[in-house]
Amino acid sequence: MSDPEPAGLELGDETLAQQVAAFAVAHPYEALPDAVVDSVRKRVLDTVGIAVAATALPTSAGADAFAAEQGGVPQATAIGHDGRMPAGWAAFVNGVLAHSLDYDDTHLPSVLHPSATVVPASLAAAEANGSSGRELIAAVACGLEVCVRLGMAGYDRASGASLFFEHGQHATSICGAMGAVVSVGLLSGFGPDEIVHALGLAASMSSGIIEANRTGGTVKRMHCGWAAHAAVSAAQLVRHGFTGPPTVLEGRFGFFRAWLHGSFDAAAVTEGLGERWEVPGIFFKPYPANHFTHTAIDAARAISSRGVDLAAVTSVVLGVPAPIVHTIGEPIEVKRRPETGYMAQFSGPYAVVAGLLGGGGLAVGLDDYTDELARDPYRRRLMALVDVVADDRCTAVFPYQFPAVLRVELRDGQELEQAVMVNRGGPQRPLTYDELATKFADNAARVVPAAVVEATRDLIGTLEQLDDVSILLGPLGVAMANHSMSKEGR
Amino acid sequence: MSDPEPAGLELGDETLAQQVAAFAVAHPYEALPDAVVDSVRKRVLDTVGIAVAATALPTSAGADAFAAEQGGVPQATAIGHDGRMPAGWAAFVNGVLAHSLDYDDTHLPSVLHPSATVVPASLAAAEANGSSGRELIAAVACGLEVCVRLGMAGYDRASGASLFFEHGQHATSICGAMGAVVSVGLLSGFGPDEIVHALGLAASMSSGIIEANRTGGTVKRMHCGWAAHAAVSAAQLVRHGFTGPPTVLEGRFGFFRAWLHGSFDAAAVTEGLGERWEVPGIFFKPYPANHFTHTAIDAARAISSRGVDLAAVTSVVLGVPAPIVHTIGEPIEVKRRPETGYMAQFSGPYAVVAGLLGGGGLAVGLDDYTDELARDPYRRRLMALVDVVADDRCTAVFPYQFPAVLRVELRDGQELEQAVMVNRGGPQRPLTYDELATKFADNAARVVPAAVVEATRDLIGTLEQLDDVSILLGPLGVAMANHSMSKEGR
Repeated sequence: MSDPEPAGLELGDETLAQQVAAFAVAHPYEALPDAVVDSVRKRVLDTVGIAVAATALPTSAGADAFAAEQGGVPQATAIGHDGRMPAGWAAFVNGVLAHSLDYDDTHLPSVLHPSATVVPASLAAAEANGSSGRELIAAVACGLEVCVRLGMAGYDRASGASLFFEHGQHATSICGAMGAVVSVGLLSGFGPDEIVHALGLAASMSSGIIEANRTGGTVKRMHCGWAAHAAVSAAQLVRHGFTGPPTVLEGRFGFFRAWLHGSFDAAAVTEGLGERWEVPGIFFKPYPANHFTHTAIDAARAISSRGVDLAAVTSVVLGVPAPIVHTIGEPIEVKRRPETGYMAQFSGPYAVVAGLLGGGGLAVGLDDYTDELARDPYRRRLMALVDVVADDRCTAVFPYQFPAVLRVELRDGQELEQAVMVNRGGPQRPLTYDELATKFADNAARVVPAAVVEATRDLIGTLEQLDDVSILLGPLGVAMANHSMSKEGR
Repeated sequence: MSDPEPAGLELGDETLAQQVAAFAVAHPYEALPDAVVDSVRKRVLDTVGIAVAATALPTSAGADAFAAEQGGVPQATAIGHDGRMPAGWAAFVNGVLAHSLDYDDTHLPSVLHPSATVVPASLAAAEANGSSGRELIAAVACGLEVCVRLGMAGYDRASGASLFFEHGQHATSICGAMGAVVSVGLLSGFGPDEIVHALGLAASMSSGIIEANRTGGTVKRMHCGWAAHAAVSAAQLVRHGFTGPPTVLEGRFGFFRAWLHGSFDAAAVTEGLGERWEVPGIFFKPYPANHFTHTAIDAARAISSRGVDLAAVTSVVLGVPAPIVHTIGEPIEVKRRPETGYMAQFSGPYAVVAGLLGGGGLAVGLDDYTDELARDPYRRRLMALVDVVADDRCTAVFPYQFPAVLRVELRDGQELEQAVMVNRGGPQRPLTYDELATKFADNAARVVPAAVVEATRDLIGTLEQLDDVSILLGPLGVAMANHSMSKEGR
């Protein structure tokens, strides 16, 4: 073998992993700013609601059946599954559920979805360890913070893009496993040295490529599940004596070398860590579609509310940041005729039409992205009128916002314009707990009885009062066990 | 979210994954060349023997306890564990065992260790599926071939190095998961489409960084275990309906993009696939040390056999290929005074002294790499006489061979020289089944009774006659269950 030789290391300053670990153990619930606690409570609610709704997907049924087939000790609840399973497999199932609808939260500019891995791994570890609500909140807070900061280290200011993404790497699961292992470590009572080891193991277990988004396959739906499974397993292996390198992040053969070939911004990981929190700034998704399409929905909603006669519309121009025209506007013929609800999620024209017509949830909801509506002739006639173009005002604030400027021309020559420069669900236009509860209910009530929806919402709303979070997901396991998980053919 | 939009794909030629899958299903036992069958039989024997010996490590006990704690359905045998566990966890434990001693086989020039992941994953899947010996042989053969060819695609002719390795990536586990999922897919009765999906999933689960070899930690010992666990899980998830992209390997956001940023040699994967087999050319390790040190051991053995009085030695010069001086010769003061058996494995001076003094196994064995011997004053006095230098003749054939030219000067001015240009254990100097049985016995008899050693050796020797391989590992589980797995403090 020609693996490099073992060698001693002389360390002056603390390594990145050591600084991350020191930050995590220094931030129990009592040390968290209120805004962080509030944010985490919302993220747990949002993630659980999305996971409940996602049980209707065939891939979710597959993930559940796979995990159930393993058998094992009853430690934690997989949503939609009656009876507990080993924590690592519960984390897997809930991680699959949390990300499968593309409805989970997004951090800009790291452009990753932190809660989909961190929250499921934390819930499973907290349940297995009998942790309190406060311990869960602190663990999720620190895990999310680490996850998004690792993602930020891969942000390339020159191109305005994530280098992970550029290399086909799914930062969501790759950085997700790293953040989640910090959460699981905290919930396992780890001190800083053990958290460093846990990061060292998770770095050799984190993975995820996004080729499926180009040429097909459902594999991305399991990325966050596998990352959460890896995080729980890594922490358990540390408890059984495995150790990792202190320089796991910045080392010559470390995490950033392996993924980004050494091109990364170390300061993004540690600068202001524990003082300036990224967590409250993570964007919630008000709508179940590609994040780039959200302001288009809002702009269309606003124009619709002015009382436009849609039959009189002759043309629509959707202006967006130049880098995203490709994603939601090209090829325009395909974007105007999505074949599935999933393709509709990535269509600028569909977003405009969905906004003009309105729907459930917080303006449009899951029921507005069905395969049937994607192919609806009336919607397609409207979509045929929509062009997607680059707009300089929008480009100027990208990727800190994903704005839209919508211009609608009517038969009588009248032109309506609506600019939406700030995303709903971000820190400058936050969703309240009540608004997220509306989204939660829209998601969860599709699958579980109203009483369970309300009970879960209320429990999470007062999470910090729970002595033992084991009761949190129980009703969502039991109540759904008799529900067919594959009723919907999305 | 800003993941790329879904899109259709127009494919003309078959993708790499499709060619790999077509190769695999076209090569059942009956279609394999004799040399491949012989080679696989030896690799199964070698891997199992190493795994048995590795149960003595504390990390092995940790891996076993971790897996046992999960509980679950009894499907497959973890070596050293009484009672079966789920196939995915048995694959994990055996994968940890197979690679932990750095005694497993090596493919040049991909510089990876294919059997340590492929064989454990295959054994677990074969046992769970009740496969025959012939099915196991074919699955291992195809998995090994795919694994090493993916590694070869990352070989950089210009630098003579593996690009995976250059980027801190452990090709052993990264390509190992991909090869192993082909094996597991075959043993699961998959057709070519399902094998493509399985590759698509495994690519989002394969991982492993080698920073621990620079700054410490035992994490590398679990890399092949996690890769084997991923392979078994990926195939099970495909059975439950998950799918992957057909362009998973060469795609714009695929496997080679993610790891090598797109710099790879596609022809290495498919050229002559099924006609020219790499499997028989994979090097076995005759000695439990870094592969670069093996010819030094042989050269020293040869000089020793001439009857040299070691007290009369005044200086020793070990000439090796220039690229490996760093690994086994620098810093020379450290290499002359290894603190542990593990450090001794990477020491050129220690290899020379071990060869001069002789030992167990095939010349030197596991008992010659203890912490105690690494610090032995007599060995250190001899090591102090050894210099490690670049030798042009050796450099010329690297990395196809790792040669050594040893020059020993005696007090009377006499100079002895011994060149070993071809590695023992490679295709030009193969180890016979009987020689590998000697290595197997040296490894296995440390832990299990002689009767079990012999029975296992004979079963593997006639593997193609077994209707159901489930009986293969049973004795190694039961016989060792009462054996303390952590008796040795390596």
